[in-house]
Amino acid sequence: MFLGKVIGNLVASRKHEDLQGVKLLIIQPLNHRRLPVGPAIVAVDSLRAGPGELVFLEDGREASFTLPNTFVPVDAAVVGIVDQIDVTDGKGYNKNQES
Amino acid sequence: MFLGKVIGNLVASRKHEDLQGVKLLIIQPLNHRRLPVGPAIVAVDSLRAGPGELVFLEDGREASFTLPNTFVPVDAAVVGIVDQIDVTDGKGYNKNQES
Amino acid sequence: MFLGKVIGNLVASRKHEDLQGVKLLIIQPLNHRRLPVGPAIVAVDSLRAGPGELVFLEDGREASFTLPNTFVPVDAAVVGIVDQIDVTDGKGYNKNQES
Amino acid sequence: MFLGKVIGNLVASRKHEDLQGVKLLIIQPLNHRRLPVGPAIVAVDSLRAGPGELVFLEDGREASFTLPNTFVPVDAAVVGIVDQIDVTDGKGYNKNQES
Amino acid sequence: MFLGKVIGNLVASRKHEDLQGVKLLIIQPLNHRRLPVGPAIVAVDSLRAGPGELVFLEDGREASFTLPNTFVPVDAAVVGIVDQIDVTDGKGYNKNQES
Repeated sequence: MFLGKVIGNLVASRKHEDLQGVKLLIIQPLNHRRLPVGPAIVAVDSLRAGPGELVFLEDGREASFTLPNTFVPVDAAVVGIVDQIDVTDGKGYNKNQES
Repeated sequence: MFLGKVIGNLVASRKHEDLQGVKLLIIQPLNHRRLPVGPAIVAVDSLRAGPGELVFLEDGREASFTLPNTFVPVDAAVVGIVDQIDVTDGKGYNKNQES
Repeated sequence: MFLGKVIGNLVASRKHEDLQGVKLLIIQPLNHRRLPVGPAIVAVDSLRAGPGELVFLEDGREASFTLPNTFVPVDAAVVGIVDQIDVTDGKGYNKNQES
Repeated sequence: MFLGKVIGNLVASRKHEDLQGVKLLIIQPLNHRRLPVGPAIVAVDSLRAGPGELVFLEDGREASFTLPNTFVPVDAAVVGIVDQIDVTDGKGYNKNQES
Repeated sequence: MFLGKVIGNLVASRKHEDLQGVKLLIIQPLNHRRLPVGPAIVAVDSLRAGPGELVFLEDGREASFTLPNTFVPVDAAVVGIVDQIDVTDGKGYNKNQES
């Protein structure tokens, strides 16, 4: 899995039928120092992550396991919203202490 | 999933039998600012996306879930056509306002 | 899927038993302008693609769907031989007009 | 699989239900000389790897095979803690001789 | 699949139980000219490849198909030992003519 920040959302009326009603977010992948890594991706979200939130994501076949129907053509999903990160090589992250 | 633009199509008469009748597009992957990211790929499309359209795609095992036969050797599929993107860090996208 | 050119083949007498009799090609991945992208890979081929031919490939679990036995440890397969590519941003490709 | 070093951990109270009680580590991927390769990732761990330990990881569908429930949306897992590495092209690694 | 050279091995006493007795190699991925591509990886081997041998590997879900138990958390496996490579764009490889 990898860290990411919610930077937007995507609306599509013409889409695969199994994606009807599925929330689609634009996510910027981040490293553990919360610096951007590569291009933004599109991920499904069933945790109601909000703009700017630090989340972690899963990509691959298992992403659909976060949805009611697991035979859906999705390959990236928000699987958790980060409260805290402790790292041995620098400053960590605490959601409540972010300004 | 990731964003992409339809930039062409591919014709192949000799192909795996499960790909008979499946539409094959050339897609340029894009980031959320719609700048190219990496090389163009080949993806199946069952949504009838047209040239120049902004779509989002799925790659991996699940791509075949967009086809009638899901045990087909494909690994990338158009899963939606983008109407609108809202991002917190810049200009979004609205299909109807594109010129 | 992605484009590639057949640049060689590989012979291996000691190999996983499910690969006995399976043709193995060396493929150079290409972008839609047919320029090389990354290192060459090894792919199975059941379409009898020849040296220099432009093909498209699938990588991942589904690659084995091109073989009689689908529980085989392969992850890349030629799934079609390209006849024609039309692109909106440049010169396309037509197999019969190649010199 | 690939080598990595445990550099931290991640706490998330809002997460996919199947991740309840699953330990989440921040891992820096390393090459065989133990130099960093790419950004840190988030992986599940059922081997109780500690901070600074050299481990090897699996990413992909199989990562969930390390958990009691294998239909869980995770895609990276610690699968072993390295005792020793012997390489033909340089200095290896021995856990007991690290200072 | 991709080419690689066996450059070492890895010993781990604490590992996922399904990896007990499974041989773990350190492999340097190579291109078709046998130049290194990216960082070394860890792969399972049931073909008894030796140090310095040129092999080809599979990565992904199918890697476990090379093991007696196929529900094992591994994602890379040696699937063959290369005897010969013929390429149209340069010098090939013949195991018996290597000095």
